[in-house]
Amino acid sequence: MPISANDTKRKSWVEVPENSDFPIQNIPFGVFLTKEYVVTVGTRIGDSAIDLGALQQLNYFEGIELTDDMFMQDTLNDFISDGKKTWRLVRNRIAEIFDKNNPKLRDNAKHRDIVIFKMDEVEMQLPVLIGDYTDFYSSKEHATNVGKMFRDPENALLPNWLHIPVGYHGRSSTIIPSGIPVHRPIGQTLPAGENTPVFGPSRLIDFELETAFITTDANVMGEMIPINEAEDYIFGMVLLNDWSARDIQKWEYVPLGPFLAKSFASSISPWIVTMDALEPFRVASPKQDPSPLPYLQQKGKHSFDIHLEVAIQPENEKPTVIGNSNFKYMYWTMSQQLTHHTSNGCRVNSGDMMGSGTISGPTPNSYGSMLELTWGGKNPIKLNDGTERKFINDNDTVIMKGFCQNGQVRLGFGEVSSKLLPPFVRK
Amino acid sequence: MPISANDTKRKSWVEVPENSDFPIQNIPFGVFLTKEYVVTVGTRIGDSAIDLGALQQLNYFEGIELTDDMFMQDTLNDFISDGKKTWRLVRNRIAEIFDKNNPKLRDNAKHRDIVIFKMDEVEMQLPVLIGDYTDFYSSKEHATNVGKMFRDPENALLPNWLHIPVGYHGRSSTIIPSGIPVHRPIGQTLPAGENTPVFGPSRLIDFELETAFITTDANVMGEMIPINEAEDYIFGMVLLNDWSARDIQKWEYVPLGPFLAKSFASSISPWIVTMDALEPFRVASPKQDPSPLPYLQQKGKHSFDIHLEVAIQPENEKPTVIGNSNFKYMYWTMSQQLTHHTSNGCRVNSGDMMGSGTISGPTPNSYGSMLELTWGGKNPIKLNDGTERKFINDNDTVIMKGFCQNGQVRLGFGEVSSKLLPPFVRK
Repeated sequence: MPISANDTKRKSWVEVPENSDFPIQNIPFGVFLTKEYVVTVGTRIGDSAIDLGALQQLNYFEGIELTDDMFMQDTLNDFISDGKKTWRLVRNRIAEIFDKNNPKLRDNAKHRDIVIFKMDEVEMQLPVLIGDYTDFYSSKEHATNVGKMFRDPENALLPNWLHIPVGYHGRSSTIIPSGIPVHRPIGQTLPAGENTPVFGPSRLIDFELETAFITTDANVMGEMIPINEAEDYIFGMVLLNDWSARDIQKWEYVPLGPFLAKSFASSISPWIVTMDALEPFRVASPKQDPSPLPYLQQKGKHSFDIHLEVAIQPENEKPTVIGNSNFKYMYWTMSQQLTHHTSNGCRVNSGDMMGSGTISGPTPNSYGSMLELTWGGKNPIKLNDGTERKFINDNDTVIMKGFCQNGQVRLGFGEVSSKLLPPFVRK
Repeated sequence: MPISANDTKRKSWVEVPENSDFPIQNIPFGVFLTKEYVVTVGTRIGDSAIDLGALQQLNYFEGIELTDDMFMQDTLNDFISDGKKTWRLVRNRIAEIFDKNNPKLRDNAKHRDIVIFKMDEVEMQLPVLIGDYTDFYSSKEHATNVGKMFRDPENALLPNWLHIPVGYHGRSSTIIPSGIPVHRPIGQTLPAGENTPVFGPSRLIDFELETAFITTDANVMGEMIPINEAEDYIFGMVLLNDWSARDIQKWEYVPLGPFLAKSFASSISPWIVTMDALEPFRVASPKQDPSPLPYLQQKGKHSFDIHLEVAIQPENEKPTVIGNSNFKYMYWTMSQQLTHHTSNGCRVNSGDMMGSGTISGPTPNSYGSMLELTWGGKNPIKLNDGTERKFINDNDTVIMKGFCQNGQVRLGFGEVSSKLLPPFVRK
């Protein structure tokens, strides 16, 4: 089944601004609330939000096997459950419907009124009900930087790191879409030189520049997804800001790992960009040495060239871009992560989310966290408004963007943007 | 609102065998599938399963504000969302309906046929959709034993342990009810003296004897549940066997905590025993020294006297009880766990599950895992059939039971029983 939606010559009759992340070659999936308070599954072209529920009711998906209310839902989980063949049929069909040479919807003003909204008229929701959220730790540069700062600079990587895509379970209940502000968490920290912890607002709030992938139902309990099948179970990707409280983390994380330092919030971009859309940007991942164990060995190219950037926007100021990275730096691939995750028989469901871990590149300006960019606060970053940051201040907004570009097309994720508010006050 | 369901003088017209965990003073909540393939919320008296959906349709809950399909669901999440007042009204009403002096249902054979099943005619399901699962590490004896074995016998407890109810996020997708078998997981382990891991079936499968509590919607994001309110948000408890692969755990867990060593399966008992039912068994928890930080300080009794036991049953043999413990040994209380969990603003939803961590008592026969009972495999346990165990063998069934008993009444959880199968073979 060809991915006709990827045809780089195709233009849409829907206007697409220059350098938009959402040309007709993207066709991401999300969930939005319209101004009439209807929740629907949708896609986006340019700055237009497209109601797929309405399109289905108007019979534009005729011939594709879908349940009647597939898109009139408040999550994508059921659609994702339908599997790769259906995703591709639907995405290809959407490309046809919005092709500038197709008059069917283009010339039907009544239908267009029902189907198409301006992006600023809709409110993006979480695209999936996330049953389980896992976060990996798969950037060698990030793991090395953290190891140098907190452990032994000569042996920065732990012994298991080059053999295992190390990961841990995260908290699903506090995953929120772009735009929702986050309160500075309160927690236990151990002041330097003391033996007794104190309880109060975290002083070291950090972002982590990550991507995440969303899975479909992958296996029954007990079953491992073989490495050569793993990509078939990945629906698409989002940007992820894995908010972190470094001082809480330092005190709590031994021996069971990060807990409250992470679980106060994780922000994601609202549009899931499909693996089909990302296919033209496939690149090789870094060479793995030593070679991983056979169940994790794969041939060919399994990473993607996705430019990533992060900016800090102080209250009433313009954003300053403070870091640029790229998904292609990841040492472990998404397929290796998914195969490893299921190697013990762990069941993976539709809508599960798996984070990459902080994506740091090889140079200091490509690091993916304030911890690394300021090297533990030693080298503050100057913003365009003249102020400095070691970590994130109250009322700062952290903005992450991600896009792919080649000679023919540019497409991307939009952004995940979230403001850090002062600690919550109970009313 | 009095807890009339706890009246110890009350008897039911439903037969209750001697030493049953399910007298009319228990009234737990669960979900079962009937032989007509109907899924319903239910309760249990003696060896009878009671269909609460049918009871509601027959108007037995008249006067209690409930949505029409409250019990005709495949999870308890909506009922739990209704809050403590509703839980108590419903439990009190069930006690009245089944009181031996109440003729209404007792003398209505037609209704009884619709409402009451034999336990062996129904199939117990997972009682809640578990959005997030957290496992704590709150037994001082267990943490000390593990510290002695793997770290420093002189400083067995880590510095944060006496200040924090240490916990981590677990995997929800592999929580299964009693009776579902578990495959021995495959994974990476590091052979002694080697630098390179191997991939194969885990050789050190262990149980962890735990309880878990189920929460209701407790807070909005950002909000901490104060310690003196925390118990109001706990619906009830179950038994939990937190299956563990010790060799996988040892190799993978630094620095982000246990992952695949735990996520292959966690088994729970299917009936949620309410905190109201456990109220008569309230006892003090161990004295905490040093005193916890103010947000975790509480007065009064906040633990429960729950006898726990674990047995191993080899294939075609009788079970051998190998350990006895008690929930009252837990150093950190459930309210402290819940308050700490929300102290950073982490949202807690209806149906979330929080495990106690392995519950070990002060004596070697009260330890809650094979790791401790055999002291890392050094002291194998002899079973009644003459065989020995260091860890769990293929085709062994692990059975955990828990009950409370005082002069007037005995009530309990039934059991969580699950068989360890050989590794999964993909067809």
